[in-house]
Amino acid sequence: MSPVWTILFVTISLLCATTMASDPDPVQDFCIPDPRYGSLKAAHLTTLPCKNSSEATTDDFIFSGVKRAGNFSADTGLAAIPVNPTNFPGLNTLGMSFIRADLKVDGINPPHFHPRATEIAYVVEGSVYSGFVDSTSRVFARTVEQGEVMVYPRGLVHFQMNVGDKPATIFGSFNSQNPGSQKIPTAVFGSGIKEELLEKAFGLSPKQIGAMRRRFDPKKVK
Amino acid sequence: MSPVWTILFVTISLLCATTMASDPDPVQDFCIPDPRYGSLKAAHLTTLPCKNSSEATTDDFIFSGVKRAGNFSADTGLAAIPVNPTNFPGLNTLGMSFIRADLKVDGINPPHFHPRATEIAYVVEGSVYSGFVDSTSRVFARTVEQGEVMVYPRGLVHFQMNVGDKPATIFGSFNSQNPGSQKIPTAVFGSGIKEELLEKAFGLSPKQIGAMRRRFDPKKVK
Amino acid sequence: MSPVWTILFVTISLLCATTMASDPDPVQDFCIPDPRYGSLKAAHLTTLPCKNSSEATTDDFIFSGVKRAGNFSADTGLAAIPVNPTNFPGLNTLGMSFIRADLKVDGINPPHFHPRATEIAYVVEGSVYSGFVDSTSRVFARTVEQGEVMVYPRGLVHFQMNVGDKPATIFGSFNSQNPGSQKIPTAVFGSGIKEELLEKAFGLSPKQIGAMRRRFDPKKVK
Amino acid sequence: MSPVWTILFVTISLLCATTMASDPDPVQDFCIPDPRYGSLKAAHLTTLPCKNSSEATTDDFIFSGVKRAGNFSADTGLAAIPVNPTNFPGLNTLGMSFIRADLKVDGINPPHFHPRATEIAYVVEGSVYSGFVDSTSRVFARTVEQGEVMVYPRGLVHFQMNVGDKPATIFGSFNSQNPGSQKIPTAVFGSGIKEELLEKAFGLSPKQIGAMRRRFDPKKVK
Amino acid sequence: MSPVWTILFVTISLLCATTMASDPDPVQDFCIPDPRYGSLKAAHLTTLPCKNSSEATTDDFIFSGVKRAGNFSADTGLAAIPVNPTNFPGLNTLGMSFIRADLKVDGINPPHFHPRATEIAYVVEGSVYSGFVDSTSRVFARTVEQGEVMVYPRGLVHFQMNVGDKPATIFGSFNSQNPGSQKIPTAVFGSGIKEELLEKAFGLSPKQIGAMRRRFDPKKVK
Amino acid sequence: MSPVWTILFVTISLLCATTMASDPDPVQDFCIPDPRYGSLKAAHLTTLPCKNSSEATTDDFIFSGVKRAGNFSADTGLAAIPVNPTNFPGLNTLGMSFIRADLKVDGINPPHFHPRATEIAYVVEGSVYSGFVDSTSRVFARTVEQGEVMVYPRGLVHFQMNVGDKPATIFGSFNSQNPGSQKIPTAVFGSGIKEELLEKAFGLSPKQIGAMRRRFDPKKVK
Repeated sequence: MSPVWTILFVTISLLCATTMASDPDPVQDFCIPDPRYGSLKAAHLTTLPCKNSSEATTDDFIFSGVKRAGNFSADTGLAAIPVNPTNFPGLNTLGMSFIRADLKVDGINPPHFHPRATEIAYVVEGSVYSGFVDSTSRVFARTVEQGEVMVYPRGLVHFQMNVGDKPATIFGSFNSQNPGSQKIPTAVFGSGIKEELLEKAFGLSPKQIGAMRRRFDPKKVK
Repeated sequence: MSPVWTILFVTISLLCATTMASDPDPVQDFCIPDPRYGSLKAAHLTTLPCKNSSEATTDDFIFSGVKRAGNFSADTGLAAIPVNPTNFPGLNTLGMSFIRADLKVDGINPPHFHPRATEIAYVVEGSVYSGFVDSTSRVFARTVEQGEVMVYPRGLVHFQMNVGDKPATIFGSFNSQNPGSQKIPTAVFGSGIKEELLEKAFGLSPKQIGAMRRRFDPKKVK
Repeated sequence: MSPVWTILFVTISLLCATTMASDPDPVQDFCIPDPRYGSLKAAHLTTLPCKNSSEATTDDFIFSGVKRAGNFSADTGLAAIPVNPTNFPGLNTLGMSFIRADLKVDGINPPHFHPRATEIAYVVEGSVYSGFVDSTSRVFARTVEQGEVMVYPRGLVHFQMNVGDKPATIFGSFNSQNPGSQKIPTAVFGSGIKEELLEKAFGLSPKQIGAMRRRFDPKKVK
Repeated sequence: MSPVWTILFVTISLLCATTMASDPDPVQDFCIPDPRYGSLKAAHLTTLPCKNSSEATTDDFIFSGVKRAGNFSADTGLAAIPVNPTNFPGLNTLGMSFIRADLKVDGINPPHFHPRATEIAYVVEGSVYSGFVDSTSRVFARTVEQGEVMVYPRGLVHFQMNVGDKPATIFGSFNSQNPGSQKIPTAVFGSGIKEELLEKAFGLSPKQIGAMRRRFDPKKVK
Repeated sequence: MSPVWTILFVTISLLCATTMASDPDPVQDFCIPDPRYGSLKAAHLTTLPCKNSSEATTDDFIFSGVKRAGNFSADTGLAAIPVNPTNFPGLNTLGMSFIRADLKVDGINPPHFHPRATEIAYVVEGSVYSGFVDSTSRVFARTVEQGEVMVYPRGLVHFQMNVGDKPATIFGSFNSQNPGSQKIPTAVFGSGIKEELLEKAFGLSPKQIGAMRRRFDPKKVK
Repeated sequence: MSPVWTILFVTISLLCATTMASDPDPVQDFCIPDPRYGSLKAAHLTTLPCKNSSEATTDDFIFSGVKRAGNFSADTGLAAIPVNPTNFPGLNTLGMSFIRADLKVDGINPPHFHPRATEIAYVVEGSVYSGFVDSTSRVFARTVEQGEVMVYPRGLVHFQMNVGDKPATIFGSFNSQNPGSQKIPTAVFGSGIKEELLEKAFGLSPKQIGAMRRRFDPKKVK
């Protein structure tokens, strides 16, 4: 085998080491994607090669980016920092991820759900009206105070609103390295589903649906 | 059955409700809940005792209840017959279930998702506008014709509308014995989430939200 | 890093994106192998790179190849079209696959089993004698009519025969993206297991075993 | 124990039979079924109550019943002792089980498969022709000598024959607490599948099929 | 409740202890053990019956018991409040649990590991020397400051020490409802393993081993 | 596409075929890493490409390297040969691995645990004091004789010592292709955890901890 191919194969072997891209039991202690081989911001970064475990460092397992709130949305008053292997590579293959969510006074986290994880939400600061809806469309919600913890079962719609008089901070953790998220307003009204279907589904007029489609057009929402 | 045993069995049914709490690999060929020990219609029927395997019969593994369409909803024009271990006990522990959905002309299956399963939808008859929305709020939808098959990935919002000129029939199957279902209109507007949060989330007026809450009040929807 | 290596690494990152080649919970919405990087017919196609999710199209999630029956085997009268990520790439990582099976009058689907999945068989048309055998060698079988559904538990031997007077069509779905299949006659008599062992196992004469080995020689069977 | 309690416990044992229906990660150190509440020989014994962990003893985790060969079958020359939670309760919920198989000179273990587990076979003594068949009906087989180890992938047909001049002993282990087993001769020819289907599937005459059905009639086989 | 029913329910609780033996995907929205049928403090409480889902209340999903630190151990300066379905029943079947750990100045959380979960540790307050050891006995450790998050991969030994000048608070979450915990000092030196083996394993004298066995005698440790 | 890229992509496709690097249900019969593309001794060898299944040979599934004991450690009297896909590629993706452990008279296997698997230990020869410790720090241990089998539940500390008067041989099997192993003495005292923490955790003096750190320095231990 020529040296070039040898290098190539060794490289690819390293590159492929990330491949255990599911949330079952890991078959190794850890697998940190190696940023030398691609952008950590890329959509498929979870498939970057693992570092050789001897190159892993302590900092690979510690995340410092949730010390402060992220950027607030003007629409909702929410600042969310989702943390998963794209920004904290050490999580790769370990079956968990987390989020810091800050809410301005009266700010909301609109109804949404995570297709692939249960969430445990710890209220670090503030008073938050928080709840979820079960498969029978029954809501479980009340104000959750600082130091309390609420659990949202996997895949069920949930939401939050700051009902206190100061900013609120929530630390949420998930039992998947990539729980995913579908925000109902944008997914339903901003995704381009046929108007006629939405009108019938929600009992709204063409004009109302049109207004919502404009409001939640993904080009405008952030 | 004497009242004491009836109480006992009902109690035990309740007691055992924690049990078959997963869709992993089975550790036995099959496990058919025994109807002698509780109502097959009960919410927690999946926790009824298994029949002794020697008492299982061929009919335990064959379901005849989807030969014809179910009852149509006047609101949506949809008739859905979900089949899982509550009505087809032989499915218990086998990791699959299915549904027959019929749509009148112009009928819709409103945006909904299954928290615990991927769905494969086979169009037995008719022309159906069908699609799903991914985590980036992008829609994948077009008309699916008789004999075609569409797949909806686990936990993502999807929907259907009969766009042909005759009734349509869909046979859907799931990789969970109990995929669950959250219908967006009812879960969001009919569940009793605080008005203020919904107003902000959807940019609707109190009046509009009030109208939708009345429309999707679970006491009225069917 | 030179541009060539950069391109290479980016490419490989894309290439490796398919790697979640198991049937556990997915860690992404979907992952469609990209046909630009290899033949969709290849044995290991499931390891082709994912398309960037922004390049996915609606047609990636819809399959049109089971509208009509496949090619019938002269020996058995069976025409089977198994559908999995090799011919329907959108199924990749989603934990499900399916099959269309057509049987001529008196046609059979010989005893076989799927090592990695339960199957739900929906009779679209016709009358089919259908059944499976459990671990105690007990058979569960009867004629299944149009519109009925039979379930075959994971890994158990099952079979079908058209006992009606017109062709039959079955739509089967599986809870694995690659359920696998072992056909008993070919696996046992056509695979080259030592004659002496087969003679003892089945109580057949060397001559009988020889005849069966010739009959099920994989070079001749199709 | 009074009759009422006996009935109660038997009933509950039946009732609970749905429960430990999987080989996933345990959520406790161990769970030993308590023999006070039912026969350890019963089909559904895996659903007996756990002992309180403080009542568990060292002997619950050690099995002494495979020190010697079991009873040999006159037909095959095989003596197999499968060990799972029915005879070694400490295995319950731990995701593994094992077997001791002894073969007389020329003895065989007929083609069979385990629907729910991979097997690792360690030859403790003797020379064994051993192999398995893959999904493409290709056989992988050769003589395995004392001290060698062969692996049979999950769900694939495999077999063994003592080709040495003294008895052989094999220690097999499985990655399921109840791997199940389908012996091809009995499952196919002894289970009562319709003759016509078998004739077509194997290309045998009614007379030949009749002879095999008699030979593998489960009432006669052991 | 009459004594007979009390006995019955306690018995059934014990009987059902085999049941929820895994952390796989749930097959229902949630399953809250019903405290009417047994003590929520009991070892096997996870096997208590579910409440009927219509009886579930919002408070079932919110935990208020980690607002303040627990009781500090005089030996280590650690106050830990593990939260799982025994004290927060709503977590049952959801695949997650959590812990609040407070450390006095110089307090330690001794080397330990969780056999069944990865842990994400969020430092709510203080400065904590924190780390884990991988399979090659390499340590990954440094001081983690308030607002930082460290991840400990499943099953690997880890530890913490307050190295700041005020109390520290950590919120840890797990991807199992019952991660388990083995504290190395107690498990190894306090469990009664034969002295001779420990002497050889650790290179300590009989006198030293004797002293450690007395120190970590479980009757004295708390 | 130029020939070079074509070759590259085909190659990479082959290379990536190993990627199912977890212990869930496999999605293929087997996947043997191809030694042509990298060293079978490498840390990440599990990510080497699969051989095309048509190139697999019988020898890929048979391991001959545990016929005799491995090299004995002078410190412990233990000779261990762990077998996993790095030295027996055929195990890759099959969810199992194994080990041969030989103990000289009085030799020990120090307290250790496997983070990712249950172990079944079959005593091929000799008398072995063997046991494990549960989460409550209770030990389950006694002498296990030739032909007996002990099970160590997943993730719990266990140990062995030859208490007979001749060498002992143990065949252990695991329900993970890479169970991992943490040896307590080396992981705790040889990994470089801060002295102060170890002193407090074990109640040992700085001098004692220093001695143990020197003894278990990984550069010296083997």
